[in-house]
Amino acid sequence: MNEKIILGIDPGTTVMGFGMIEVCNNKMKLIMIDELILKKYESHSLRLKRIFEKTLALIDAFHPDELAIEAPFYGKNVQSMLKLGRAQGVAMAAGLYREVPITEYSPKKIKMAITGNGNASKEQVAGMLQNLLNIKNLPDSLDATDGLAAAVCHHFNSGKSIGEKSYSGWSAFVKQNPGRTQNS
Amino acid sequence: MNEKIILGIDPGTTVMGFGMIEVCNNKMKLIMIDELILKKYESHSLRLKRIFEKTLALIDAFHPDELAIEAPFYGKNVQSMLKLGRAQGVAMAAGLYREVPITEYSPKKIKMAITGNGNASKEQVAGMLQNLLNIKNLPDSLDATDGLAAAVCHHFNSGKSIGEKSYSGWSAFVKQNPGRTQNS
Repeated sequence: MNEKIILGIDPGTTVMGFGMIEVCNNKMKLIMIDELILKKYESHSLRLKRIFEKTLALIDAFHPDELAIEAPFYGKNVQSMLKLGRAQGVAMAAGLYREVPITEYSPKKIKMAITGNGNASKEQVAGMLQNLLNIKNLPDSLDATDGLAAAVCHHFNSGKSIGEKSYSGWSAFVKQNPGRTQNS
Repeated sequence: MNEKIILGIDPGTTVMGFGMIEVCNNKMKLIMIDELILKKYESHSLRLKRIFEKTLALIDAFHPDELAIEAPFYGKNVQSMLKLGRAQGVAMAAGLYREVPITEYSPKKIKMAITGNGNASKEQVAGMLQNLLNIKNLPDSLDATDGLAAAVCHHFNSGKSIGEKSYSGWSAFVKQNPGRTQNS
């Protein structure tokens, strides 16, 4: 019996999509799919605060074993990347704070894992998720599916350790690197 | 009697400089100046975790009333801005989590506030800080002074509300905007 809960999030600056799955004996089951609308807050900092609080609340309520984040590595300009970096940073802070291992995936990698095509449309990704997880009704907004897609991508990549960047938390580091932390 | 503690931080990806001052009847007193060396951690996520933990620990130990962050708004490329944004994001998450109001200042603004010259060198800023706060011995590394400079800049700008971006936390927002949060 091999059970695992994976939280997937897509922390954007206007919407944060998130989804959670339970994996039991390699079978996936949907726990939730939802989104946090951020554009209603004018202040960038309130958006960051909401992302942090929501991620922390999800972790504390469902105790996911792993966190998968959709993280674009390129963007149109330095200003938008700074804002996106901050959004990712606060979401990651919640995971790091609670010692939940974090793995990042690029949007292309996620699309590839779900549909077999790195350039698939949001509709194609949503359709595949609906099939894979037997979801009757998807939310109207496809932003919500991005977080769920990250979680499913992480499951497909589990054990293969081909996640693009894997963050296994402080305690894992200390275990792996005894003696490296006395000056920290 | 008007007392205030200001924590200033400069969250970079290789070093985080931080400094704290107490302001009493408009007179500044140094509480601390130090730096957190991050380049010894290879993993970007461990650096983020250390920034978050250090900022949270400083807040919990000294209960600053306000947090000032040195935040460049431009950088050389999108990759470095994404990393910098994440570093700022985790530091801000700690402040937002503890409801400490955050104000951002660009490096130019900080140099201008301390020395009167937006293009001053690190040595000139350090020299002025040493005079202003009667510091006998500054740390060898000038990275540590950047955080302190942000705190002093914030004091000089206090009341004038010309901080570049002011983040007054969730509870202030709720007070100022009753009825805007029921769907959150």
